[in-house]
Amino acid sequence: MGGMNGERLVLHEYSASGNCYKVRLTASLLGLNLERREYDILKGETRTPQFLATVNANGRIPVLQVGERFLPESNAACFYLADGSALIPADRFERADMLRWMGFEQYNHEPNIATMRFWVAYVGEANLTDAQRDQIPAKRIAGEAALRLMDEHLGDRPYFVGNRLTLADIALYAYTHVAGEGGFRLGDYPNVEAWLDRVAATPGYVAMEA
Amino acid sequence: MGGMNGERLVLHEYSASGNCYKVRLTASLLGLNLERREYDILKGETRTPQFLATVNANGRIPVLQVGERFLPESNAACFYLADGSALIPADRFERADMLRWMGFEQYNHEPNIATMRFWVAYVGEANLTDAQRDQIPAKRIAGEAALRLMDEHLGDRPYFVGNRLTLADIALYAYTHVAGEGGFRLGDYPNVEAWLDRVAATPGYVAMEA
Repeated sequence: MGGMNGERLVLHEYSASGNCYKVRLTASLLGLNLERREYDILKGETRTPQFLATVNANGRIPVLQVGERFLPESNAACFYLADGSALIPADRFERADMLRWMGFEQYNHEPNIATMRFWVAYVGEANLTDAQRDQIPAKRIAGEAALRLMDEHLGDRPYFVGNRLTLADIALYAYTHVAGEGGFRLGDYPNVEAWLDRVAATPGYVAMEA
Repeated sequence: MGGMNGERLVLHEYSASGNCYKVRLTASLLGLNLERREYDILKGETRTPQFLATVNANGRIPVLQVGERFLPESNAACFYLADGSALIPADRFERADMLRWMGFEQYNHEPNIATMRFWVAYVGEANLTDAQRDQIPAKRIAGEAALRLMDEHLGDRPYFVGNRLTLADIALYAYTHVAGEGGFRLGDYPNVEAWLDRVAATPGYVAMEA
């Protein structure tokens, strides 16, 4: 129970966010206990003066609180929790390759697949601005391209890096396994589907809604 | 000279890209020699069948070639080069905090500040699609917010993490120091300007156009 060196670990989150789930899944796989503090981003609860002054000046979640220090950005929080564990490869090239897939997730996957899910399933298409609606076709194409690239990569390997589960899999799992909520058809990507099952079968796995 | 364990290091790049410059600047600060292979992204040279099959299925640069292996994503390439050096903090929290700022750069800074520079200075505003043009006001506001947050953070510290230059500074320096090309006014952010000067004065520094 508890954090590193006995420090308290608190996840400041919006639990429906895949970025927040990444941190919970990492902690669960490592057997670490996280306190959870929920904010409703749709009501602006991460933009209050108090949140901006104490938790994250960037107004975003997740933020991992370690004792009295605050660490924004999901990938950074996962790296902090997993540092020194088998979720980060010991090999130098593989360690960098893990960060490569985490970067791909943040840059090519999340802005398309997660944003489509948020717009379709949470905001509602009728409530989008014109500028958002104009971006839908490009985001759908880019999201499909990301899933296709993942499917090809997984054609001859069980996980994204090396032969075991790493933070790269956790980062990519979070929004991929709910991509259907944004209108993507996971059935078109059989290697991705098999990999999703593999991740969900890992000892210590916890579901997004848990 | 040369790579890790004598392996050849080749940077596949478009030299005007800040993401490629991050890798060159990291190598230069570490005294590592990189071979350079230039591609014109405006002519689609990173979308050829050969590039997609051998260098990066994602069709993007930079890609760091280490011997016969290929590592896409600028942050991953910088981490690979700097692994074990003083450019990555030894302290666990600071190491994660470095990744936090590198994530901020990729998610909140680069899509606004770098994209505005690319659209204004390279593509040309007259050649943008309507969907791109519609995004300009939001990107300008988000880019200013990123610069303001950086300026506040640097108000009482010399570098982004700890008391010395890390990969976080390199990642943020690349597109910040040319933000003026995208219409951002760096003079509004004095702490950022002082930090830019500090980075440029680091032994081993190399300019973007070098």
